[in-house]
Amino acid sequence: MSDTFVQIASSLVSLARGLHTRGWLLGTSGNLSAVVDREPLRLAITPSGADKGELTAAQILLIDEDCISINEPAVKLNNDVPGKPSDESPLHVTVVKARGAGAVIHTHSVWATILSDVHALEGGVAIEGYEMLKGLHGVSTHQHREWIPIIDNSQDMPALANTLNEVLAQYPDAHACLLRCHGLYTWGRDLQEAKRHVEILEFLLEAVGRRT
Amino acid sequence: MSDTFVQIASSLVSLARGLHTRGWLLGTSGNLSAVVDREPLRLAITPSGADKGELTAAQILLIDEDCISINEPAVKLNNDVPGKPSDESPLHVTVVKARGAGAVIHTHSVWATILSDVHALEGGVAIEGYEMLKGLHGVSTHQHREWIPIIDNSQDMPALANTLNEVLAQYPDAHACLLRCHGLYTWGRDLQEAKRHVEILEFLLEAVGRRT
Amino acid sequence: MSDTFVQIASSLVSLARGLHTRGWLLGTSGNLSAVVDREPLRLAITPSGADKGELTAAQILLIDEDCISINEPAVKLNNDVPGKPSDESPLHVTVVKARGAGAVIHTHSVWATILSDVHALEGGVAIEGYEMLKGLHGVSTHQHREWIPIIDNSQDMPALANTLNEVLAQYPDAHACLLRCHGLYTWGRDLQEAKRHVEILEFLLEAVGRRT
Amino acid sequence: MSDTFVQIASSLVSLARGLHTRGWLLGTSGNLSAVVDREPLRLAITPSGADKGELTAAQILLIDEDCISINEPAVKLNNDVPGKPSDESPLHVTVVKARGAGAVIHTHSVWATILSDVHALEGGVAIEGYEMLKGLHGVSTHQHREWIPIIDNSQDMPALANTLNEVLAQYPDAHACLLRCHGLYTWGRDLQEAKRHVEILEFLLEAVGRRT
Repeated sequence: MSDTFVQIASSLVSLARGLHTRGWLLGTSGNLSAVVDREPLRLAITPSGADKGELTAAQILLIDEDCISINEPAVKLNNDVPGKPSDESPLHVTVVKARGAGAVIHTHSVWATILSDVHALEGGVAIEGYEMLKGLHGVSTHQHREWIPIIDNSQDMPALANTLNEVLAQYPDAHACLLRCHGLYTWGRDLQEAKRHVEILEFLLEAVGRRT
Repeated sequence: MSDTFVQIASSLVSLARGLHTRGWLLGTSGNLSAVVDREPLRLAITPSGADKGELTAAQILLIDEDCISINEPAVKLNNDVPGKPSDESPLHVTVVKARGAGAVIHTHSVWATILSDVHALEGGVAIEGYEMLKGLHGVSTHQHREWIPIIDNSQDMPALANTLNEVLAQYPDAHACLLRCHGLYTWGRDLQEAKRHVEILEFLLEAVGRRT
Repeated sequence: MSDTFVQIASSLVSLARGLHTRGWLLGTSGNLSAVVDREPLRLAITPSGADKGELTAAQILLIDEDCISINEPAVKLNNDVPGKPSDESPLHVTVVKARGAGAVIHTHSVWATILSDVHALEGGVAIEGYEMLKGLHGVSTHQHREWIPIIDNSQDMPALANTLNEVLAQYPDAHACLLRCHGLYTWGRDLQEAKRHVEILEFLLEAVGRRT
Repeated sequence: MSDTFVQIASSLVSLARGLHTRGWLLGTSGNLSAVVDREPLRLAITPSGADKGELTAAQILLIDEDCISINEPAVKLNNDVPGKPSDESPLHVTVVKARGAGAVIHTHSVWATILSDVHALEGGVAIEGYEMLKGLHGVSTHQHREWIPIIDNSQDMPALANTLNEVLAQYPDAHACLLRCHGLYTWGRDLQEAKRHVEILEFLLEAVGRRT
């Protein structure tokens, strides 16, 4: 494994544990990834079914653009079953390709879950006028209107990845996407920016949710 | 004491402290258990009246299927009274036998407490359509409908254990049970799965509670 | 200083820091005390104006029944002003004498503050039917009805202590008292029991508050 | 760098991390400053765009009254871009001059954000009757009425600083100011007092917000 991968794996773990403490990755929900190489694509990603509060760097997997695992993680998850990449890996690859993102974070918070359902028929949640929006990449004023599109949830991952791809093309300025009754996808040029976007969007969804 | 018991006791303590931090085991409420042996049944369980934020492995008790303490814990609780198994031990044994569970966790969260009363007349809480449900053992789609039965609370533990046994038989697919104005019982094949179920169900109850 | 005082001071600090983390002692609000000796009365108590998240054992004061400081704490608070006992010391002494308590804890939580005002005209908050009530000393069933009397707030401490004394006599079974728009007073035979009562009552007030 | 600056930088970091944990400085929002020298004015301030949960003392900047950076911080933020003072530095300097404050803290909490919008047309939020108010400098009774003026948000920092200056003159007794849909500014004679004011005001805004 390259030094870069080891370093990224360690950052993913530290971030995942912090987000688990905040209650945004409970019950093995959610997943995080970061680009290790672009050509060919190599993505470090959290394994399927891992407790994010107990995650270790040795559990982080390296996948290619077809979501095939390249490395074999040194430490196994429970029951000695070898770790497999998150089922939602195709969504991560989709975001990385569509947005040129360097990192993708998918959280399951209570407020994101509620709002993704309450606003489903409108097709998205509009957030406007908050200073906190300025922390999103490329936004320079609180007068910005952020539209977070909502996609219907599905267990057909290739179909879901396809829908996500279309939505990302339809809303080229969107910094995030909600899956209905499921959670938030956001991303950034690197893991630090993706983390910033998670904190900003979860904050804003809580503010919007408490006012509804 | 066997190595297994020592290891399980340590895991119970670590888990109990984490759940106490989240506010789900305040005021010595709640209890946790894990199977050490099946034949004859040996269950490691938290003692009655322990502060879960200060719990130590030496306080964990080993009981048989009649809830009689096998070991004598090395460290005593306050006032040097020898620790006795949780009063709700019969409920733990009931779940272990009825479900073949390897671990049982009983939490007292604010949202579980509220919903167990608000939905008491309906006999349970239905949770449907959330991706988070997929983390429950054997559930493969968010379209799953989880029915969490609600049992009237009682201080007659044998009677309560009996009612719980009947409810578990009546709802063979249920992953949990609520005691009215009291809290949540859930379980898993091992402690890791039981922890996952607690996090998932407490998350979902909060989401449902905030929308009501 | 006696070994007992040093040990109690250390326990008060550890407990105060934990309650500050939960948000129940923000902004130097609240105070804690524990009996060191009964005859004559010696009470270890947190100093006035201390940040409970930064409290150290050297800041804990020892007072007599007239709230006069016996020891001089080794470490000074900000600006090298010698620490003085909490302004609310007379309320602590009142509880210790009226109830024979070994420890008194006064917290300022958001829910206690809100309910102490919402229910002020009724003179108290009734909490009934919750299993969590069983953790209060001497309560053996969830069918217990706990009446938490509410006292009008005042800056006249001797008068407030007098009113508290009357209310404690009027409700000999009460485990706590609310000061209107101010916070919760509870107590126990020792610090461990007082901590248990705080966690139970803050939990119940949150549950009641969220249902209102 | 003087010993004083090093000490103040370390205190700013410790405080910023704690407030980030509480969710009041998410997504690189908010900023903190403390006076190092009065004549000429030297202010230690957090850099623009820093993750407050990962802040280090080496990132803290020293600015003059024109918000020009005096030192060059030893450690760079992401991408090796040299740290620059917070864009809102003029607001900090304004508060320091208008109030003679020794420290200024600007937080972004969910409740402050909501209330700053809900009460915008009234021009401020009135908080009255809470014991917690007594923790504000110079307030000796809960009967105090605190008026927190609300200023419209703007990206024109000199204009915003000017408006803030006028509002501070108009309300000489105010301990804080809200920027609409943005967050809270408060201050104190030193960092300890500013921290106390943050905790008190965030507590009170949450209490007021939950009752609305």
